[in-house]
Amino acid sequence: MTDAAYDSPRDPGRARRSPRADGYRMPAEFEPHERCLIAWPTRTRAYWAESYMLAQHTYAAVARAIARFEPVTVLARPGEGLEARSYCGFDAVDVVEMPLDDSWIRDSGPNVVRRPDGARALADFAFNSWGERYVPYDDDARIGEMLAGHLRLPRYASPMVLEGGSITVDGEGTLITTESCLLHPSRNPDMTRDEIERELRNFLGVDKVIWLKSGLGLDEDPDTDGHVDGVAAFIGPARVLLHMVRDPRHPDFENLSENRRRLETTDALGRPLEIVELDLRSRPVRLGGKDLVETYVNFYQANGGVVVPTAGTADDLPALERLGKIFPDRAVVGVPTAAVGYGGGGIHCITQQVPAGAATPARGEG
Amino acid sequence: MTDAAYDSPRDPGRARRSPRADGYRMPAEFEPHERCLIAWPTRTRAYWAESYMLAQHTYAAVARAIARFEPVTVLARPGEGLEARSYCGFDAVDVVEMPLDDSWIRDSGPNVVRRPDGARALADFAFNSWGERYVPYDDDARIGEMLAGHLRLPRYASPMVLEGGSITVDGEGTLITTESCLLHPSRNPDMTRDEIERELRNFLGVDKVIWLKSGLGLDEDPDTDGHVDGVAAFIGPARVLLHMVRDPRHPDFENLSENRRRLETTDALGRPLEIVELDLRSRPVRLGGKDLVETYVNFYQANGGVVVPTAGTADDLPALERLGKIFPDRAVVGVPTAAVGYGGGGIHCITQQVPAGAATPARGEG
Repeated sequence: MTDAAYDSPRDPGRARRSPRADGYRMPAEFEPHERCLIAWPTRTRAYWAESYMLAQHTYAAVARAIARFEPVTVLARPGEGLEARSYCGFDAVDVVEMPLDDSWIRDSGPNVVRRPDGARALADFAFNSWGERYVPYDDDARIGEMLAGHLRLPRYASPMVLEGGSITVDGEGTLITTESCLLHPSRNPDMTRDEIERELRNFLGVDKVIWLKSGLGLDEDPDTDGHVDGVAAFIGPARVLLHMVRDPRHPDFENLSENRRRLETTDALGRPLEIVELDLRSRPVRLGGKDLVETYVNFYQANGGVVVPTAGTADDLPALERLGKIFPDRAVVGVPTAAVGYGGGGIHCITQQVPAGAATPARGEG
Repeated sequence: MTDAAYDSPRDPGRARRSPRADGYRMPAEFEPHERCLIAWPTRTRAYWAESYMLAQHTYAAVARAIARFEPVTVLARPGEGLEARSYCGFDAVDVVEMPLDDSWIRDSGPNVVRRPDGARALADFAFNSWGERYVPYDDDARIGEMLAGHLRLPRYASPMVLEGGSITVDGEGTLITTESCLLHPSRNPDMTRDEIERELRNFLGVDKVIWLKSGLGLDEDPDTDGHVDGVAAFIGPARVLLHMVRDPRHPDFENLSENRRRLETTDALGRPLEIVELDLRSRPVRLGGKDLVETYVNFYQANGGVVVPTAGTADDLPALERLGKIFPDRAVVGVPTAAVGYGGGGIHCITQQVPAGAATPARGEG
C-alpha cells in the first residue's frame, strides 16, 4: 500500500507506471512545506575526524534555524538519535533513527512529488555515492525505501542515478541541471542525454530541461562534479537566482558566464526566465587547511524563511543584504556552516523539503 | 554619578562606604533576572587553537538556550561583535563590543548587588586571572569599570581578588565558598581568613560564610583552585545542590564527603540547609586528549529555566532526569558544552546574571 513501485514484478499492473503517468510532479522548494528532513552527521565518516563535535553543533544550528519556520525531522543512525536531540534541543526537532552512511540527504534521499489533489509520493532515484566516491553507501542507497515506510508515502524507484542537489525545479514543468554532473560517466554511462531527460520528465513531471554547463570549479573535483545547487536555484515562478563572479580572471568566470547565457531562455510555460544575480563570497572560507565549497545559493527555502550558509564574518554582509532584497517576503537567516563546507556541501545539501500535501491521516488510520 | 567608589580618594565622603553600608546585597541566582551577560570567546587564547570555530558554535548554543528564558547580552572584542551575532543569530541576542582578554565573565566580571528598593550596583572585586595563570588580563580586569558605564550602574571596587565562580549566595545573607580557592596564596596572600570574610560581608551583604573544603580535583590543577561552582549551588532558600560521588575510590570522594559534612549546618537565618545531592557524570568527557572539568552543577539558573552543561550523550540522562525533579518549576535544558570544558569551565563560568531591579530609566534620562 505504501510502495507503488515503478517497475515492480510483484505488481505487474503498475509496471512501467511513473510518477508523471500517475499525475505527480515535484513542487518547487519555494512552495509550502510540511517539514524539512535533515540527516545527522555520522561519526564513521573519516573527513569529520577531530571536527565531529563541530559538525554536530553546526548541523544543530541549521536544524534549529529551520525549525523557526517549519517542523524538522532529523534522521540519525540507530543509537545516535539521543545525541542529535541533545545538540538540536530535545523539543526543537523530531528524530527518527535509521541506518545511514552519511549526512547528505539532498543527494542520497528521495524527492517528494505531489498530485494536484495533494497526494504525495517519493520519486526515488538510484544513489551511487557521487560516482562511488565514498564507500560504503548501502544504507544511504536505501533511504528512500526506509522513508517510504516512515512517511507512509508510495515510492517510485528509478534505476537512474541522480542526486537531488543536481536539479532545481519550478514546480510548473521546468528543471535546471548541469551537464558536468548528469552527463558524467560515473553516473549513468549507458544512458544518452535524451534518455536521462526522459527519465527526469517521467519521474519529476517536468516538460523542459535547461542544461547549464557546470557548477563551481571548486566543487567539481573531488565532490559532486558540479551540482546545480552550488550555482543556481529557482526562487519563484520564472525566477532563478544565479551565482556570478565579476572578475574575468576568476576560475569560475567562464563557466558561470556560460551558465548565464544558457538561462537566457523561456521556461516550460514559455515565460522568459528572470535571472537574479548574486556575487560569490569574496574569499573562500578556510577550515582545516582546505578552501571550502560553500556558496550562498546553497540555501534552504523554508516556509517564510531562507536559511543561508555563511562564513560568520563581515564577508557575508553584502550577500545577506542582497538576499534580504531578493526575498522581501522571507526572513533571511544566516548560519555559519564552514563545517558543512568542510564535509563538502552547504545547507541545501543536508536538507530535503517535504512539500505540504493533503490532510495528514489521523493517528490509527492508514 | 555612575561610579560610587568604595574607597575613592576623589570622594572622601564616601571613603570606606561599602555596598552593604549603602543597603545593597547580592541576590541569589535563582531570583528573577533582567538579563544574562556572556563574554564571547576570544581568538587570541591559545587553548582554542583549532577548536575556535567549535567554541563559537558552543557559546552560541548556550546564548540561544538562555535567550529562551531571558534577554542575553553578549560582550565581544571590538570588531568581533559581528561574528558573535552571526553565530548567535542576529535577532537572538544583544551584542556589546568592549576590550576583553578571555571569555570567563563569571570570574572576570563584577557581581550585581541590589537594594530593597530595587536599585542595583556592581560589587567589583579585583581579578588577577586565577593567580596570574593566563596573561595578559588587563582588559578583563577592567570589565567592571566598562560595564558600569554600559549598564549605568554605580560601581564599588574592592582591592580583594575574587572570582564570581568561587561563591554562591542565597540572597538572604548566606554565602558558600571553598578554602582551596579563597585561601590560596595566589589570590590574597596578605589577607587572613577573617579579613577575606569581612570583605565578602561588606561587598555582597552577607552575614554568614560557609567554607567548604574544595572543589573537584580535576578542577584544582591547573585551573581555578577549586571553585565552588563546580560542586555546589544555592537553588532556593536554605537549599543547596551538591555534587557527590558514591564510589569511595573516586579521587573526589573524600573532598566531596567533607563538603557535605560542612553543609550540615544552618544558614544566616538559622534554617538548616537542605542538601540536594546530584551524582557527578559517570565518566569524564574527553576532547583533544583532555579529560574535561565540566560538572552538571555548573549550570545557569535563568528565569524559568536551568541551562545545564552536558556531554550530549546518553551519559547525561540520569542527571537531566534528576534535575527535572529537583527543579519542578523550571525547564531543564541541556547544551553540549565540551568545548567550554576544554577551555576550563562550564555554562556558569561563561555567564553572569543581572538581577531584575527598579524600573529601567527611559532613554535620555540618567
